[in-house]
Amino acid sequence: MRDVGEFGLIDRVARQALQSPTVLLGPGDDAALVAAPDGRVVASTDLLLQGRHFRTDWSTAYQVGRKAAAQNLADIAAMGAVPTALLIGLAAPADLPVTWAQELAAGLADECALVGVSVAGGDTTRADSIMIAVTALGDLRGHAPVTRSGAHPGDRVAIVGELGWSACGYQLLASGAAGPQKALARHRVPEPPYAQGPLAAEAGATAMIDVSDGLLADLGHIARESDVGIDVEPGAFAIPEQLRTTADRLGIDPLVWILTGGEDHALAACYPAAADIPPGWTVIGTVHKRSADQSAPRVTVAGKAWIGAQGWDHFA
Amino acid sequence: MRDVGEFGLIDRVARQALQSPTVLLGPGDDAALVAAPDGRVVASTDLLLQGRHFRTDWSTAYQVGRKAAAQNLADIAAMGAVPTALLIGLAAPADLPVTWAQELAAGLADECALVGVSVAGGDTTRADSIMIAVTALGDLRGHAPVTRSGAHPGDRVAIVGELGWSACGYQLLASGAAGPQKALARHRVPEPPYAQGPLAAEAGATAMIDVSDGLLADLGHIARESDVGIDVEPGAFAIPEQLRTTADRLGIDPLVWILTGGEDHALAACYPAAADIPPGWTVIGTVHKRSADQSAPRVTVAGKAWIGAQGWDHFA
Repeated sequence: MRDVGEFGLIDRVARQALQSPTVLLGPGDDAALVAAPDGRVVASTDLLLQGRHFRTDWSTAYQVGRKAAAQNLADIAAMGAVPTALLIGLAAPADLPVTWAQELAAGLADECALVGVSVAGGDTTRADSIMIAVTALGDLRGHAPVTRSGAHPGDRVAIVGELGWSACGYQLLASGAAGPQKALARHRVPEPPYAQGPLAAEAGATAMIDVSDGLLADLGHIARESDVGIDVEPGAFAIPEQLRTTADRLGIDPLVWILTGGEDHALAACYPAAADIPPGWTVIGTVHKRSADQSAPRVTVAGKAWIGAQGWDHFA
Repeated sequence: MRDVGEFGLIDRVARQALQSPTVLLGPGDDAALVAAPDGRVVASTDLLLQGRHFRTDWSTAYQVGRKAAAQNLADIAAMGAVPTALLIGLAAPADLPVTWAQELAAGLADECALVGVSVAGGDTTRADSIMIAVTALGDLRGHAPVTRSGAHPGDRVAIVGELGWSACGYQLLASGAAGPQKALARHRVPEPPYAQGPLAAEAGATAMIDVSDGLLADLGHIARESDVGIDVEPGAFAIPEQLRTTADRLGIDPLVWILTGGEDHALAACYPAAADIPPGWTVIGTVHKRSADQSAPRVTVAGKAWIGAQGWDHFA
């Protein structure tokens, strides 16, 4: 990167891409200009750090780019919005090959293309290791945002997208054990069901969340913000054969991956009893009144506290 | 930070602040919701790294927060827009005192309050050193964005805000030499003339830039994007007495600080000959046709190439 220089890198990485119609002014100025036809803009920022959120020996630069974009675009979908643009901050060592940054940009661009947007701007600087800051913007198209705080007792809890694969892939990579390619692929590049976010909003979802920390942990966020309890029915999950056999071989309950594995970027939402839940969603639980016993867990599995990891806390 | 945990930290840092009217949904959900009454949103992302963009032994957490917000809000002003919200990504070591993050948040909030906005959301994660990713959003209120590419031959070049103080402060901190408190203060916390950005847009500015890399380097961005030449009149700058005496004592030409010092976050703009330049701006140069000689410098000082630092390139 030292040879190209900061300004050269910004030019190379950002300007090579075609801009989507929502990007009215792309990279190269003090700021970008992005369409916000709704008169409001949905905005989310995430950080990805080398060694913590990705490993360059586990994932290619292209895969890191795909994942960095995906996890932020999923946040936009989880509000019920459609993405409009991405902004990228890249800190990288001076001896990082320029091709790595170019492949990262290609991954970002390709994931953005899945939802019809592009990278509208960014910043690059030197650092000892690679850090990527992603900001995603989105548009609600006149809908109310679907927050974490709107769930009501009597709602059904449903998910869309696949769960458990990323955690399985992580375990395979960490242990060196053999296992399904799909698990490795999904850990490297999740496949969030982007279009389902706005569909859930249209169908009247009362609360929604991107499943990034693990399903039980993320349902816990909804339960806390909505001041309700949520019970998950473990029999509702169709456990894929490949996940089950891999888990059996490793001596693990595959439900642990499904209920507590992070980074799958499925969507979980609550729907009123009368709502027509869109095709593709699976009902996996119910919302009930918060227990009078304040020490009772907010999220239960078949009516009982779940023993085990509750998802990740990055400072724990 | 380890004791509080990631979710606790987000809650503490982000939710304690009152939200501005432009923040329709603040921290605590998958994404924030920010007003964009113009139907377009201006967006800019910057990274600040410990040891590279700030030093914890030179600046307090509060000052780092002020500066992190200021440099991004200045980018919004440089487009002719008014800020609407900030999003923050914070990567920090587990042993960072929680008070440091709280003081950082206070600095961010206080700088935001100068322009009537607030921190609408963010992300925190663990890292070996402190990294802050700031995204600023803004609204054009119906004006066209003032880009870097609209300057025309015959335009006057004007600046608003003070130049040279941050570079002077940096030199004092780096050398341990004594000098004016104002220089130290401005290096730690710049004072961008936020309100002048929209005023310049209203007055018909053809091009504008936030002076962050150094005046000549930043005018070079305008000259390149507009395909023009710019000549700077060095006699046009009123050199403050404190800067001159400090420079004399260090054996430096104070014009070096003014023309090439970074991080002052003044604004530089080009105005048509017929425009009424708003009060507070100083005309310091002129826009002319690009020389037919492609090897000639795009930006000259009194008609000649400037010998010396041309601003910073973070990978050079």
